[in-house]
Amino acid sequence: MVYFFSFGGDFMVSFRHFKSVIRLNELFEDLCDLTKEGELTARRIETMVSEVLGLKLFYGTERVSEMTISALADLAEETQALAKMQKMQSGEVVNFIEGAESENRPALHTAMRDFFEQRNTAPKAKEASELAYKECEKLRSFFEEIEKKKQFTDLVQIGIGGSELGPKAVYLALAAFSKPGRRVHFLSNVDPDEASLIFRSLNLENTLVVVVSKSGNTLETQTNEQLARERFRKAGLNPQSHFLAVTGKGSPMDNPQHYAASFYIWDYIGGRYSATSMVGAVALTFALGMDRFLEFLKGASGMDKVALRPDLKTNLPLLSALLGVWNRNFLGLPTVAIIPYSQALSRFPAHLQQLDMESNGKRIDKKGVAVDFDTGPIIWGEPGTNGQHSFYQSLHQGTTVVPIEFIGFKESQYREDLSYLGTTSQDKLLSNLFAQSIAFAVGQVSDNPNKRFLGNRPNRVLFAERLDPYTMGSILAYYEHKVAFQGFLWNINSFDQEGVQLGKKLALKMLDQFATLRQGKVVEGKGFPLGAAYLKQIEAMKR
Amino acid sequence: MVYFFSFGGDFMVSFRHFKSVIRLNELFEDLCDLTKEGELTARRIETMVSEVLGLKLFYGTERVSEMTISALADLAEETQALAKMQKMQSGEVVNFIEGAESENRPALHTAMRDFFEQRNTAPKAKEASELAYKECEKLRSFFEEIEKKKQFTDLVQIGIGGSELGPKAVYLALAAFSKPGRRVHFLSNVDPDEASLIFRSLNLENTLVVVVSKSGNTLETQTNEQLARERFRKAGLNPQSHFLAVTGKGSPMDNPQHYAASFYIWDYIGGRYSATSMVGAVALTFALGMDRFLEFLKGASGMDKVALRPDLKTNLPLLSALLGVWNRNFLGLPTVAIIPYSQALSRFPAHLQQLDMESNGKRIDKKGVAVDFDTGPIIWGEPGTNGQHSFYQSLHQGTTVVPIEFIGFKESQYREDLSYLGTTSQDKLLSNLFAQSIAFAVGQVSDNPNKRFLGNRPNRVLFAERLDPYTMGSILAYYEHKVAFQGFLWNINSFDQEGVQLGKKLALKMLDQFATLRQGKVVEGKGFPLGAAYLKQIEAMKR
Repeated sequence: MVYFFSFGGDFMVSFRHFKSVIRLNELFEDLCDLTKEGELTARRIETMVSEVLGLKLFYGTERVSEMTISALADLAEETQALAKMQKMQSGEVVNFIEGAESENRPALHTAMRDFFEQRNTAPKAKEASELAYKECEKLRSFFEEIEKKKQFTDLVQIGIGGSELGPKAVYLALAAFSKPGRRVHFLSNVDPDEASLIFRSLNLENTLVVVVSKSGNTLETQTNEQLARERFRKAGLNPQSHFLAVTGKGSPMDNPQHYAASFYIWDYIGGRYSATSMVGAVALTFALGMDRFLEFLKGASGMDKVALRPDLKTNLPLLSALLGVWNRNFLGLPTVAIIPYSQALSRFPAHLQQLDMESNGKRIDKKGVAVDFDTGPIIWGEPGTNGQHSFYQSLHQGTTVVPIEFIGFKESQYREDLSYLGTTSQDKLLSNLFAQSIAFAVGQVSDNPNKRFLGNRPNRVLFAERLDPYTMGSILAYYEHKVAFQGFLWNINSFDQEGVQLGKKLALKMLDQFATLRQGKVVEGKGFPLGAAYLKQIEAMKR
Repeated sequence: MVYFFSFGGDFMVSFRHFKSVIRLNELFEDLCDLTKEGELTARRIETMVSEVLGLKLFYGTERVSEMTISALADLAEETQALAKMQKMQSGEVVNFIEGAESENRPALHTAMRDFFEQRNTAPKAKEASELAYKECEKLRSFFEEIEKKKQFTDLVQIGIGGSELGPKAVYLALAAFSKPGRRVHFLSNVDPDEASLIFRSLNLENTLVVVVSKSGNTLETQTNEQLARERFRKAGLNPQSHFLAVTGKGSPMDNPQHYAASFYIWDYIGGRYSATSMVGAVALTFALGMDRFLEFLKGASGMDKVALRPDLKTNLPLLSALLGVWNRNFLGLPTVAIIPYSQALSRFPAHLQQLDMESNGKRIDKKGVAVDFDTGPIIWGEPGTNGQHSFYQSLHQGTTVVPIEFIGFKESQYREDLSYLGTTSQDKLLSNLFAQSIAFAVGQVSDNPNKRFLGNRPNRVLFAERLDPYTMGSILAYYEHKVAFQGFLWNINSFDQEGVQLGKKLALKMLDQFATLRQGKVVEGKGFPLGAAYLKQIEAMKR
């Protein structure tokens, strides 16, 4: 059975009926068995590795042969993945769904850092990167003044979703490179206890607050901003001289009466792709200084150019995207674990969870048709070696196979280490990383059924010299492009998020009922009886 | 086809062939459709709720009917789940696998807090709780001396897995109840950068260090202890007067020459079940004081007694376990998201990830036979509302359905809140929680395919008045017993973790190769050529 969709005169073959997909289904029938003697060899590890910008991607422990890689390359070709990446980086409208109301705009996060080599010359991309550079210049001048005052030690970033996850993950990742005595805090949740906990530890006199909201009307962010301003006023301080805005030009937040400065973002920057825009820039520059922040951008931009290369041997994000599609659509695996053997990357899996699941957790394609294959998996993870003492039991012997993306570094960040029993801590960390990569693949036979490991748990290792600003930028962009490529391969829109609207709508209805209650009136539940039922139950609660 | 296993003279029917399971399969054919008009009603929400110890479990948004609940109760009956819980709490050997070398011991974490009402009178349980109480008394005296000195403001707990995850989750959950100026830090990863980051912020003079390892020879913990001792010595301080041990009696760590005090744990306390033992007690008592720590134990013990009740309407952990089995084995859902609408519970999902996946990520049953059904799911999660701005897109519209366990509280912890636009932050938090519970269930129809939500995403809400020490204890034990019950229902051993051994073994081989390298010798890779292949690659690395 082969079927075609016809929209606007084009005949478009669906994912499941690409020639390469049919070929990949055949290859799946002869899936490589990594537990078989002679299959996973030193030679395989040494040849199944791609390298670029000082990053190595080891994929010998994935369940692929060279034929699989070649068929996956054909899939990239058939889906025009590279051409789509080129369009994205050039500022064409990639955020759209045919025949459905949608956002209809470009996704130009790559322009936020296109300040270095091989700049994109397409007019839209050029204009966006010039605007972005102007904001960087504004930020540089602003911090030159700030540094003269020597007033500020702490910065609180108020923002949720992409306004928190990416910037926080990068801040923690690069804390080893922070200026002495600088601390950044992130306030995201509308839970009032989070604000209480953060503000308790601060001297407000020495604190900057950055409020981040593209639209200027994110409920959680607005609420937390009010809480924060109230605290400054109570401390006898003028919020205006402590608060900065990162927002769209002309948004309700773009107001010099309320903020010491405003830095701009644009509608073509999605929250989850915004860490290299002003959304990340203000906090990261406060912590790291402008030079290191620019190094971070340079690493990201370097990877942007890599993502345009036709050669799968160096286009790491495309290779990784294809391996992910293999695991998701052919091996049928529902989740992906991201496991950095680096405590500094402790919140990086949470950022990737948003990046990937908000981008590719979609059920219709760009023609508006419900897909008949799986899209973005569930992304989760914690650092190693910690995970080994937590959920690895299930990864080794559970009934649900989980493909793993390991991340590791040859050197530590602080370079403070101790030789104990003949090896350093870093040696121990890496021994565990590579031992696990092998153990998941090869498994173990045993007479004791409890000591049997089925193996064939696909995994790959992204490895670099050291987690510094440049490398962090490269790794961030590597994942941004991996996710975008998977969207291109599946022909879904990775840049909108309609799926968050229904909950918002119902929350407002529920909030109306709370407001009624707070006015001392009886909640009747008209219009939202289910919400009223919950409300009635919780109002009646006592221990 | 019905088949039986015969071991040791017993005939044991397998999970898939229980009468109740066959009945549940029939019920699955007529699965309730929560999106259907008139299905999810206010009445359903108000009746499908169970309550005990001030905790309510709302499950009207699960895909169950009263007939499903009744068949699930039959499953509990057929598998003798309650009798097994009774055996566990009485100290019988529950950690075993017939016919296979295994740990062969009780799992007596409930005895660690059996100091209150309805104490267990079985000799093993009684003895264990008396021993545990003695440690609490030792701890009380120890801290009475400590408090007199007014020397210590900070405590670093060195431990990994259960020695970190549970204690840290609880410490963060109850930070609002901490003594002023007290801070606890957790050092777990062998990554040397974690130690650098933590010790950078400390005045060692005012710092206690608790080293936690049952065996006294966990590689990560030993290594970090050496790093820590070295720092104290360099600061001119005697580690012995700052370091405490939590370990098994007679372990290499049970040594007064090295530690100011030792507190004991026993081999019948698994790491992931150890938060209420001395593993959690030292740090939590330092932060909260003994009275609040005992309140926490009291909450846990209360739930232990609840877990023995035959009535599903109040036995919340059993009900939750059964709903989980329904979602896992009948709806076929591979993961579970734990989403607390409480920032204080930010690390609780990470604790549950270990608790559940290490306990139930198993592929053989207690007869040593490979299971032919799914066991423990992948557990993951982040707090709400944050998740709404991150991965909820995928939960609402992705292709993999994820059952959700929400957790919420009527009141905030700090009781510092601000009315903004007519409602408090807590109101906004709860509006979102309940709106999402409903939205996931009912979905939305729309002409725009991008605004279609299929609904029928099963979820439940665990709800309490306020997250205080007692409630935290109850919730912790609720999950411990939910996990244990699922193990009983599946007839797997939830108390061992053989699946972590293979990686450890290979890591030691790899470490040998690093040691060879550090001695300036050539790594030949004999005995572990795959590890040598990786080592060769990373040694050759340069950007």
